[in-house]
Amino acid sequence: MEPDAAITDTIAAIATPPGIGGLAVIRVSGPQALEIADRTFHGRGEPPSRRPAGTFVHGRIVSADETLDEVLLLVMRAPHSYTGEDTIEIQCHGGLVPARRILRAVLDAGARAAEPGEFTRRAFLHGKLDLAQAEAVLDLVHARSERAAAAALRQLEGSLSSSVQSIYDETAQALADVEALLDFPEEDLPEHVLASLPQRVAAVIEDIEGLARTWDEGHLLREGALVVISGPPNVGKSTLLNLLLGRERAIVSHVPGTTRDTIEETLVLEGIPLRVVDTAGLRETTCEVERAGIRRARRELSSADLHLFVLDCSRPLEQHARDELAALPAARTIVVLNKQDLGCVLTPADLPSGYSAVSTSLLQGRGLEDVRRALGLVLERHVDLHQSPHAVVSERHRELLQRAGAEMRGALDLLRAEHADENLVLAAEHLRSALENTGRVIGRTWTEELLDNIFSRFCIGK
Amino acid sequence: MEPDAAITDTIAAIATPPGIGGLAVIRVSGPQALEIADRTFHGRGEPPSRRPAGTFVHGRIVSADETLDEVLLLVMRAPHSYTGEDTIEIQCHGGLVPARRILRAVLDAGARAAEPGEFTRRAFLHGKLDLAQAEAVLDLVHARSERAAAAALRQLEGSLSSSVQSIYDETAQALADVEALLDFPEEDLPEHVLASLPQRVAAVIEDIEGLARTWDEGHLLREGALVVISGPPNVGKSTLLNLLLGRERAIVSHVPGTTRDTIEETLVLEGIPLRVVDTAGLRETTCEVERAGIRRARRELSSADLHLFVLDCSRPLEQHARDELAALPAARTIVVLNKQDLGCVLTPADLPSGYSAVSTSLLQGRGLEDVRRALGLVLERHVDLHQSPHAVVSERHRELLQRAGAEMRGALDLLRAEHADENLVLAAEHLRSALENTGRVIGRTWTEELLDNIFSRFCIGK
Repeated sequence: MEPDAAITDTIAAIATPPGIGGLAVIRVSGPQALEIADRTFHGRGEPPSRRPAGTFVHGRIVSADETLDEVLLLVMRAPHSYTGEDTIEIQCHGGLVPARRILRAVLDAGARAAEPGEFTRRAFLHGKLDLAQAEAVLDLVHARSERAAAAALRQLEGSLSSSVQSIYDETAQALADVEALLDFPEEDLPEHVLASLPQRVAAVIEDIEGLARTWDEGHLLREGALVVISGPPNVGKSTLLNLLLGRERAIVSHVPGTTRDTIEETLVLEGIPLRVVDTAGLRETTCEVERAGIRRARRELSSADLHLFVLDCSRPLEQHARDELAALPAARTIVVLNKQDLGCVLTPADLPSGYSAVSTSLLQGRGLEDVRRALGLVLERHVDLHQSPHAVVSERHRELLQRAGAEMRGALDLLRAEHADENLVLAAEHLRSALENTGRVIGRTWTEELLDNIFSRFCIGK
Repeated sequence: MEPDAAITDTIAAIATPPGIGGLAVIRVSGPQALEIADRTFHGRGEPPSRRPAGTFVHGRIVSADETLDEVLLLVMRAPHSYTGEDTIEIQCHGGLVPARRILRAVLDAGARAAEPGEFTRRAFLHGKLDLAQAEAVLDLVHARSERAAAAALRQLEGSLSSSVQSIYDETAQALADVEALLDFPEEDLPEHVLASLPQRVAAVIEDIEGLARTWDEGHLLREGALVVISGPPNVGKSTLLNLLLGRERAIVSHVPGTTRDTIEETLVLEGIPLRVVDTAGLRETTCEVERAGIRRARRELSSADLHLFVLDCSRPLEQHARDELAALPAARTIVVLNKQDLGCVLTPADLPSGYSAVSTSLLQGRGLEDVRRALGLVLERHVDLHQSPHAVVSERHRELLQRAGAEMRGALDLLRAEHADENLVLAAEHLRSALENTGRVIGRTWTEELLDNIFSRFCIGK
């Protein structure tokens, strides 16, 4: 894609997270970046616009005769910057206020507030990154575990892009050959080209399917596995959450119904981020606030990757709890038989068949490791934890690859048929559609809508 | 103070706040900073240790043959850095994981994890900042309003330091004169020096007291005014908090007792940060969880700068609520007569005398501006909102200045007395003690314990 000739304005945003920290950075990118630096920055020696790229200088940001902060100013010039444009970065004191004041001064000096992901969008439009790499930046920033970060970095370095690029090239070559065949007069068709096509298309389909299969792992790395803790009231659900997190997150009390809101926290197990949701005690109640919490809990249940169903083993299994449990998929459910210290009435044998169970005395801190181990075992069914991190596709990639795969299979059927030479026009159409879908993964073909969709998920300042 | 010869190790920390953002920065400072950069950074051209100060370079951080991230590396050399030491800064992708992985690699390469505030502590020890300036860094980072940030910046630029320095110098001169007088044989005392001393000491006392008086404003700017919302259950306390904040913070419901925990949020009014606390409905209850919330609420009440006491004006004032209100200081309490839309039974005339009241229909969004205005009026009694921001002292400064002032007054009494010439030894002692206390404000005199105390309040990475 050619750089977008329409980019004439300069964008600015705070690039560091909000909150208390040692420093913050304001990023300014576009044709007026250096001019804006000259207007707002006061330091010794040459103004920013006359300083060489790759240097930084100490000084002050001044607006309306008021010094806003002491800063470092970094000078980068097109095309040697993240966006491929002239860029300055202003490093100021951390905290909530200084960066905000400087951003305002920069906007007053002629910049426009950047949209979410707009710096990376410009990097894409200027050819610094392809689309799969741009998305990897998002994955890297949002990575919730080392394994997820490593996979995102591989993708940013181009591992996914090069796989997709080779699928794209193979598809384009097949399409070119089909189109060449169409140009031959019917009687002169070079038979060996036609004969080799099905095999070549089949090989591409295999590559596409292999890549699409990495989605399972990608999904777990990106979104994390959703682990829902459920069970009757007052069996120790919040205690289990706290122990898993290693600290007091939920307000624990022995008053049933204490946890009114659903509580979500992330922990990392074997490099896989887990989103653990502690649900409101699933009891019948007349309290309105509590009932809202219970409705929310039931919604979470339906989208869980994994269930921890906690029971008080010192009491018999009530029909209501049995029904709740039976509604959960056995292969993805771990039953936690808690309160072993109170004496056991309920044993694994009393559970519906097919459910694996772990015995705990959570208040005494006993059995937690067994719960972790059981979680790890279920996770291993989805992710090969022993393989080193590699690029994995996202939902968007999978959809495109699946469509490309379907088109390729359509082409393959036509090319394998008797009288394949009569199917060439249709086969070319399938190949062209496959090519377009593959191209969208890396941004060889794109629309404004597609870019809006992708970059709106970024944070501002990236 | 001389630079601390004992600083031989190199410290490292993440300098940006945790959370999702475009970028993060790892700061490494100390004698081995550049060596550590050479070990972990891979880029084109010269290694970091051979690059000039004031330059940055693009490359990758590699640890155990694995690329951890693509980064920019900034090179600074002693004494031209924040700490006054050799320093590198590594700017990597934002998010939770990349910065953490790089920090670990830097620690593996020989750095030590920095203590809170240790970079600024080193800046102080190397004479880059005095103690009042170092504290201003903390104030700037934690500033909750523009006004607070501007005051902190003035202090960082030395406005407080120079005031204190001139008090210090005047005191030192008075002490030197007294000591000189002590060296004279009694009969040769130069009378004019002795005669001028009381006036000079009195002038210093005035300066000290003027500075100490800025504490009121400093306190409000630093800690914010604590505004406690209280009143009977179900009168609209959480609605008021939400409206003041302009968004849904508290779970609002019409079930009395919904707000169990105290909820604290910050908003800024006239440049003053307000910490607004919505308290649990102060009703008698048998619910244990709710009672814990009520106990917490009562604790907050006792330390509030301002009270918003909300009442339902459609019901008569119950004795219990009247007692609650009467316990609050009238000058710092605003009574909010809410639910005007339901018809008014309760008017300002029904309130105990001395309390100012504002009428609202918060569910209809009416009367909120009146509440803000009333808050602003009470704040103005503490802070001159029309004066431009200036340095203001902290609790630590005030204590030291008060002690210095008391010692100076002791000296003054002795120097003003009849036969002042006989009091010179005692007066010198008072002046010496005043000098020491003043010196501690800016760090002319300090102890390890004092530094520990100050810098432990910093965040890590500053």
